[in-house]
Amino acid sequence: MTTHQQDLERFYFDYAAGLDEQHYSKWPEYFTQECRYEILSRENVEQNLPAPLMSCYSHGMVVDRVAMLVKNTLTYRRMYHKHFVSNVRVLKENGDQLEASANVLVIQSDLEGVSSLYIVGTYLDLIVTSGNRLLIKNRRVVVDSFGIDNMLAVPV
Amino acid sequence: MTTHQQDLERFYFDYAAGLDEQHYSKWPEYFTQECRYEILSRENVEQNLPAPLMSCYSHGMVVDRVAMLVKNTLTYRRMYHKHFVSNVRVLKENGDQLEASANVLVIQSDLEGVSSLYIVGTYLDLIVTSGNRLLIKNRRVVVDSFGIDNMLAVPV
Amino acid sequence: MTTHQQDLERFYFDYAAGLDEQHYSKWPEYFTQECRYEILSRENVEQNLPAPLMSCYSHGMVVDRVAMLVKNTLTYRRMYHKHFVSNVRVLKENGDQLEASANVLVIQSDLEGVSSLYIVGTYLDLIVTSGNRLLIKNRRVVVDSFGIDNMLAVPV
Repeated sequence: MTTHQQDLERFYFDYAAGLDEQHYSKWPEYFTQECRYEILSRENVEQNLPAPLMSCYSHGMVVDRVAMLVKNTLTYRRMYHKHFVSNVRVLKENGDQLEASANVLVIQSDLEGVSSLYIVGTYLDLIVTSGNRLLIKNRRVVVDSFGIDNMLAVPV
Repeated sequence: MTTHQQDLERFYFDYAAGLDEQHYSKWPEYFTQECRYEILSRENVEQNLPAPLMSCYSHGMVVDRVAMLVKNTLTYRRMYHKHFVSNVRVLKENGDQLEASANVLVIQSDLEGVSSLYIVGTYLDLIVTSGNRLLIKNRRVVVDSFGIDNMLAVPV
Repeated sequence: MTTHQQDLERFYFDYAAGLDEQHYSKWPEYFTQECRYEILSRENVEQNLPAPLMSCYSHGMVVDRVAMLVKNTLTYRRMYHKHFVSNVRVLKENGDQLEASANVLVIQSDLEGVSSLYIVGTYLDLIVTSGNRLLIKNRRVVVDSFGIDNMLAVPV
């Protein structure tokens, strides 16, 4: 588990850096061909209500999720983001699959450099090992901060 | 020390997840039978003033601390909490005891999903190894955010 | 790289603790004799504009940076600081030099214990190994939170 821990942390930190640096076209490369990416409110999760805040349930949808960001066809208020990923835990190992979780805090800053809390949540992931690489098969981002006062313009 | 570092981080992350998921009945299990748990303001600590914001100086008090939470007999404004534990350091090793510290940021979110800073502080811990397990013998939570505008309804 | 990762994290956490505990006289000891320490706005960095928010481009300037803090000759509103350093990554190794990055969140708390976001940024570092020690040869702190509503009284 020692190896997985450091590999997993690095995987999460690279993923986070990619988003913070706005390399959105690289984002789908963190997912397996068959994958799911969802943002859910903690309120719904705790009541076993299935409706997500947003959901991609195929790799094509993951690609589509960032297509407009990459092509700059989406008009929205630009913000800087910074991901603080901590409390990384391997919860279960099963052959080439890992169940893992981490807490994620995303701070947004506007173009005047004024910062505020944006996302407070937990990643609940199913990760697969593919050769030397880790890939996300299933990511559920459960957010405490579901009263988000901005549109979810960019991935978490 | 390498082993201790990862074990200690995992211990802290499990402890944090237990609180975030509101498994309060499990909280006393992180402490030794003879233990102390205190929340102190940084203001008092820096002036060597002993008064804590709250203190449990026996395991029974630790159990009592969460008894009302477990039994739902305490009425208070429900909040979600998320612990971000970082900067984990083993400061000293002495036989089966470790002195350790970590920084802790707790973000609270109300039932409408609006998030704010709740606790900003440092854990100053005396940890003992008991078989394969780590247990807290003494936890001092020194908080910078002692101007807490909520009651300390739940443990940190 | 495994060793470097834990050593580097510990180096960052010790550095952070030194600042949080206001041991400013120790701060220059984290730097090599020939060194650079800069705080830059993300706005400027992304446009390749060179002006920093503050810059020390010699060890003497680093010493000078904290001299007034150490001697208590500077009058400013005292604040507590707490560094949350996460997402630590070794980006490149080259002999005894490491390129590394980490995300840094600094929360400030005033003397009444009211906390707020202070610095949200990324360390971009050139670290050298000197015997058993790590030292900073070049630190660029790129801040998203460049609309800082306080003077940069203390180092980051």
